[in-house]
Amino acid sequence: MPTPDHHLSHEDALHHDWDPTRDPALTVSPGEVVRFDCLDASGGRLSPGTGVEELRNAEFLGHPLTGPVAVEGAEPGDGLVVELLSVETGDWGVTYTYPGDDGGSGLLPDTAPDGVVHHWDLTGDTAEFRGCEIPLAPFPGNLGLAPADGPSSTVPPRNVGGNLDVRHLVAGSRLHLPVAVAGGRFSIGDGHGAQGDGEVCITAIECPTTVDVRFEVVDDAPEVPWFETPGGGQDWREGPALCTTGIGPDLHAGAEQALSGMLDRLEERGFDRPDAYVLCSVACDLQVSQVVNAPNWTVTARLPERVLP
Amino acid sequence: MPTPDHHLSHEDALHHDWDPTRDPALTVSPGEVVRFDCLDASGGRLSPGTGVEELRNAEFLGHPLTGPVAVEGAEPGDGLVVELLSVETGDWGVTYTYPGDDGGSGLLPDTAPDGVVHHWDLTGDTAEFRGCEIPLAPFPGNLGLAPADGPSSTVPPRNVGGNLDVRHLVAGSRLHLPVAVAGGRFSIGDGHGAQGDGEVCITAIECPTTVDVRFEVVDDAPEVPWFETPGGGQDWREGPALCTTGIGPDLHAGAEQALSGMLDRLEERGFDRPDAYVLCSVACDLQVSQVVNAPNWTVTARLPERVLP
Repeated sequence: MPTPDHHLSHEDALHHDWDPTRDPALTVSPGEVVRFDCLDASGGRLSPGTGVEELRNAEFLGHPLTGPVAVEGAEPGDGLVVELLSVETGDWGVTYTYPGDDGGSGLLPDTAPDGVVHHWDLTGDTAEFRGCEIPLAPFPGNLGLAPADGPSSTVPPRNVGGNLDVRHLVAGSRLHLPVAVAGGRFSIGDGHGAQGDGEVCITAIECPTTVDVRFEVVDDAPEVPWFETPGGGQDWREGPALCTTGIGPDLHAGAEQALSGMLDRLEERGFDRPDAYVLCSVACDLQVSQVVNAPNWTVTARLPERVLP
Repeated sequence: MPTPDHHLSHEDALHHDWDPTRDPALTVSPGEVVRFDCLDASGGRLSPGTGVEELRNAEFLGHPLTGPVAVEGAEPGDGLVVELLSVETGDWGVTYTYPGDDGGSGLLPDTAPDGVVHHWDLTGDTAEFRGCEIPLAPFPGNLGLAPADGPSSTVPPRNVGGNLDVRHLVAGSRLHLPVAVAGGRFSIGDGHGAQGDGEVCITAIECPTTVDVRFEVVDDAPEVPWFETPGGGQDWREGPALCTTGIGPDLHAGAEQALSGMLDRLEERGFDRPDAYVLCSVACDLQVSQVVNAPNWTVTARLPERVLP
């Protein structure tokens, strides 16, 4: 593993939005390695042992991001290749779904109106929740470049990246992003110890991370992000599984129906429904099984038996 | 493997719609095993060596299904558990995307307006296309019960099942369906040797199949199909992969954008775009990476390097 040429910490380069006018915290040459220390998504609002009241009372400022780092020679119209050399988590993580007076949060907000907070021990290869063992496969949830316009929220991802939440972006991945402003201005944060496709309750295993990154400038800017991944040692996802379906002309409604069915199945297996919602957020995958049998598509929710008690 | 108690062939029990008034071809007791011989989706219109002209000139009658089989004791409000004991393909398969005067078919119909037909040799563990090796994991694409109303097209899936096209429904799966009419009246067909999540060009590896099925009647009718799967030996899907993203407020548009990006990448690797479309239909997976970062969701298209030359 290459030794970092630079070290950038959230203590020195923390921000909570995407702003193309923010001065770079660091400027590097292509090929240099930068080590980023990143806060978890709660940005210090939650720490081991804190609960729903702390979550209810804290204002969300945006995802805490470390950066921006400008890369010499990167100009609008170029592509920037972001190579994730390593992704290490801290020893602690947290998954939460917000309480709300009119329901909670996520894809099916009425599932957990009182909110849920679960703290994880991340010192092993798996992490435990209600008797379930979740294999860890850490990745940064939020990483990207400054957009041409701003300042903008950290919540929605954009063509320049940001809050992509793609679980395949593990160590060894090479992410291609379009450069919108001089230097590209890369920031990163929102580390996830594990996540299901969908991140349905609104969080994954949120945790502090240290990520080593190397940059390369290329001629072609992609329209939207694409990447090569080595995979995250998650063969178990293709093994025995409990699956539910959503059927109809709208993929979003199909995802809701498939998830609702999965929550029903997990209640039959003894889970409280709010707990089942949290479990699905970290381990259940939403897949588009077919999107060609008009007028009804099939969405499948898949929860590997590997994680269940 | 249990010896079949009954054998039902498409030669004796072929139909091309879902019709609750169709008389059962067979009535069985719960626990009995039925062997179904099924035609491929083209229903004899295509055979080894035939091409786009045969496809263009043949009328689509609906998926050829074998059945219906009534199960004693199954009444509306019950659930029927369909256990897939074995799924065997014939030696030949075909993938096609229809030609059309105003574009072709599938998720991005303009990709292959002249149509494509590819014939597969299914005598090994993998099947070849343009230097790609696709591991086989056969499953029935279309299986379900008669709906309460009809006759209805075989194309869209419904709450009673039908054209689900879920690649996890391999041998060893137990599929739970809601019974809508007396006996349930189960039919099956549309065998697939392999398929990507999305089935984007409109077909998978379409092939004749022989499927052994055992039925069980249970009290609870699910709202929509759900199932347990043993997995299909597809660990390679979680390994190294080429991935593209689609980002925006609509999952369907996100799926289109992610697929379009994948076709771009495959063109860079030397594939003709229509061929890339066919390859994605049998091996590229559309996944809902996140559906909670309002207003923009992330759809990821994943093509495992395992299948590429």
